[in-house]
Amino acid sequence: MIRVAIIGYGNLGRGVEFALRQNPDMELVGVFTRRAPEAVETQGATAYHMNDLLAKKGEIDVCILCGGSATDLPVQTPEITHHFNTVDSFDTHAKIPEHFAKVDQIAKENNRVSVISTGWDPGLFSLNRLYAQSILPQGETYTFWGKGVSQGHSDALRRIDGIADATQYTIPNTEVIERLKAGEALTLTTRDKHLRECFIVLEAGADEARIREEIVTMPNYFADYDTTVYVISQEELNQNHKAAPHGGTVLHTGITNESTKQVIEYNLQLESNPEFTASVLVAYARAAVRLANEKQFGAQTVFDIAPKYLSPIDVETLRRELL
Amino acid sequence: MIRVAIIGYGNLGRGVEFALRQNPDMELVGVFTRRAPEAVETQGATAYHMNDLLAKKGEIDVCILCGGSATDLPVQTPEITHHFNTVDSFDTHAKIPEHFAKVDQIAKENNRVSVISTGWDPGLFSLNRLYAQSILPQGETYTFWGKGVSQGHSDALRRIDGIADATQYTIPNTEVIERLKAGEALTLTTRDKHLRECFIVLEAGADEARIREEIVTMPNYFADYDTTVYVISQEELNQNHKAAPHGGTVLHTGITNESTKQVIEYNLQLESNPEFTASVLVAYARAAVRLANEKQFGAQTVFDIAPKYLSPIDVETLRRELL
Repeated sequence: MIRVAIIGYGNLGRGVEFALRQNPDMELVGVFTRRAPEAVETQGATAYHMNDLLAKKGEIDVCILCGGSATDLPVQTPEITHHFNTVDSFDTHAKIPEHFAKVDQIAKENNRVSVISTGWDPGLFSLNRLYAQSILPQGETYTFWGKGVSQGHSDALRRIDGIADATQYTIPNTEVIERLKAGEALTLTTRDKHLRECFIVLEAGADEARIREEIVTMPNYFADYDTTVYVISQEELNQNHKAAPHGGTVLHTGITNESTKQVIEYNLQLESNPEFTASVLVAYARAAVRLANEKQFGAQTVFDIAPKYLSPIDVETLRRELL
Repeated sequence: MIRVAIIGYGNLGRGVEFALRQNPDMELVGVFTRRAPEAVETQGATAYHMNDLLAKKGEIDVCILCGGSATDLPVQTPEITHHFNTVDSFDTHAKIPEHFAKVDQIAKENNRVSVISTGWDPGLFSLNRLYAQSILPQGETYTFWGKGVSQGHSDALRRIDGIADATQYTIPNTEVIERLKAGEALTLTTRDKHLRECFIVLEAGADEARIREEIVTMPNYFADYDTTVYVISQEELNQNHKAAPHGGTVLHTGITNESTKQVIEYNLQLESNPEFTASVLVAYARAAVRLANEKQFGAQTVFDIAPKYLSPIDVETLRRELL
């Protein structure tokens, strides 16, 4: 049995708790939190304070880190990798090299494996970009996200004066995807690839016209997109827009022999973004423990890990049944 | 530079010759054939007789074996792996364990790497089945092939008395795929998943009614499918049905947290099946040489090989730009 600790218990941590139930070769030691453990409502797991993690060192094979990339993981992944094998979903793309280098050094010094930046993007989408570009080097790779909720954009809406609550959907331009798949060569702007839909709840007396203008002109977040704003009630938002669906497409269109068109497409259609990300983290937690057993210490990403390490099934059976 | 030999020169061998032109870190030493070399029309490569292969031992890093799975590869892959790193596309699923065991022993005894059974199925489709099932263990995986030409079914048609020439298309049932993606639980028969379309050219005086009946009732090949037969002229067949498009879909529908639906889908849409397969072989040839440089000798499949080995780009750059 692979013994797992969940570090941090938000939507992602809860997703890991669910995912572990589907993996009979893994068992959950407990949830570790900076909050008062008795205040954390798990789905059945015992909650401990983070200060008690080190005392459990002999009982844990891998820690799945479920904190955020902005402030939690840059500190937690290095710290915890001193003592445990770890898996994280660090997704600040620009800071991945720095994060990797820091964690890699600690992992090697302490004989640990740390799988960083896994999930679906970075993660499965990265894998598909790599496989596709390696196989069809004369080609173009396009990543489309959605339809799904962007937490970052929803947060940006909620920070606007006069907005009580909000949900933002990122929507891929499916017409453009179909044209690319049909072999058209398109030069795409940011605006061409995705649309944005905002469902907002106004505070009493808020100036709707000013708020609409502020949204569609917001730099980085909305100004470069075709953005539609819907004003709805808090009840409607709660009822229809509080789930966390997501997904997307990695499309690679290439040619062989000068003009023969070949298309590789990978799609995810997720009813719950955090639960799916959690399922990816759990599969890579299995890989982390196996790689540690083989003494392949250091930081690793999805690029470094042979696919067989993710499966609970032995490789002879995989060759016979899945190849 | 990775120095490559092509063993066998049919459609697949020619595809490898084209693919190598797109990979500036690889160079083609030559084509090796059992035919008279001067009778082989390459796209520019020098052709040698197979008997001259061993004399080039010091000039070749990896041999890409482009023969057939029925009779060529079961003999050639073990033989050539005595002396060279090899890559093959052995696709007789039932015999993969036997082929693997034989090649693995020879590769280990002779310090070679042999990547067997790569291409797209087995190959990329196998990878996607493995990743999807590892991430969403509570789920179902479906593989659909087509729309594409099945050489085996086309050959079966041509063996019928009275048929001068023929092309058979395997067509996936897209309605079923859409229903599965929408979350329906379907129990599918062979007939539900694929349709078959046969374009046949009759010999003069052939009995069309008898031939049609013989096709749609042919066991294993057509009896279990809804099969449509079109009688056309040789001119029309030559003009419209001599290309080798193919492709397909690996669909995995799973659930997390008891009822949250998650869908993973991988699609290939290929204008040329042999050219695409060749491109996969070339990427794995790069991996074979690198693994041999790391002394990871033995037979390997797509399950055993970390994705980074396929790319000519160093892993630091991959982390920075593709992750």
